[in-house]
Amino acid sequence: MIEPGTRRREIDEVASELFHANGYAATSVRDIARALDIQGASLYAHVASKEDVLWSIVDHAATAFEHAADAATTEADAADPVDGLAALVEAHVEVITADPERSSVFVTEWRHLSPDRRAAIARRRDAYEARFRETIADGVAVGAFRATDPALAATFVLTALNGIATWYRPDGRLSADRIADHYVDLALRSLSEDHR
Amino acid sequence: MIEPGTRRREIDEVASELFHANGYAATSVRDIARALDIQGASLYAHVASKEDVLWSIVDHAATAFEHAADAATTEADAADPVDGLAALVEAHVEVITADPERSSVFVTEWRHLSPDRRAAIARRRDAYEARFRETIADGVAVGAFRATDPALAATFVLTALNGIATWYRPDGRLSADRIADHYVDLALRSLSEDHR
Repeated sequence: MIEPGTRRREIDEVASELFHANGYAATSVRDIARALDIQGASLYAHVASKEDVLWSIVDHAATAFEHAADAATTEADAADPVDGLAALVEAHVEVITADPERSSVFVTEWRHLSPDRRAAIARRRDAYEARFRETIADGVAVGAFRATDPALAATFVLTALNGIATWYRPDGRLSADRIADHYVDLALRSLSEDHR
Repeated sequence: MIEPGTRRREIDEVASELFHANGYAATSVRDIARALDIQGASLYAHVASKEDVLWSIVDHAATAFEHAADAATTEADAADPVDGLAALVEAHVEVITADPERSSVFVTEWRHLSPDRRAAIARRRDAYEARFRETIADGVAVGAFRATDPALAATFVLTALNGIATWYRPDGRLSADRIADHYVDLALRSLSEDHR
């Protein structure tokens, strides 16, 4: 017998794949049940609605990004914004490549959440983006970065990172580690003092 | 009386807004007709299917990016890859900010096209991305850029640029021109020779 927690995780995994491949709106509860080889009615024993499944996926993804950023910030040299930003970028890439489907759903499908949940995620996304923004602003303040608009620079870097969720393949040309290394380098250089 | 071409453009504009706001899969032909204040049957006098509308939007967006890149390449100094990349980035940002809804549909909804049309767009997207990739590789060859992986660097820059379609507001904090200036600067610096 499968324990309830395991089934709940399976639902999120299968739903992430379907939402990623076809979009939330085009996926029905019946599609999710069929992919799990169970009846739609059985699925409702585990989840109240399709939106509940989306919420679970998005909430878990947000938590994964937050925890990874917490750990990265703890490990990085607090006095060095360059080291801090490198750690944040690396952590972000690791969360995405560890579960690209879930990350893709987090990035593109969260707008389909109910208004209250969407507002809650918007606040968490903004707080998360603020870590990047403030680290960049700290780097500008100490002369390590040049960025006339730290908020826009944070958006530039984060959207480039989030793009990985749309194209990354575990069996692709580049390993997750290589992508992380390259993206840390590109992100740090995009803020560097010298131009050409 | 509205000439047919005008009505056809109105359909694309209204459909771009709806596909952008709610996604292609969640939008029906009836939704498009309602937004235009016409009957669904009348809409079918202009378009054969919802997918036809998506194709028209995506095809026009692809053409806009291609023409802008052609013009940028013609105007830029052909012997200077830095100038060339700056022109490509600026042109890309201009196309997005001129019509963020259409650009967003191009970036995120093209996967809902029928297989033949999707393949055709995939080829055009790849040829377009190749302009960025080759300009970066040219810059590396002449020592103007440092990029160990020009293909990945092109993806980094293009996904950051495409992100603009998801957050840009014409009445927002930054004008389209300011965003273009900042993004040209961030993109060029991400490839610059010097680090810190």
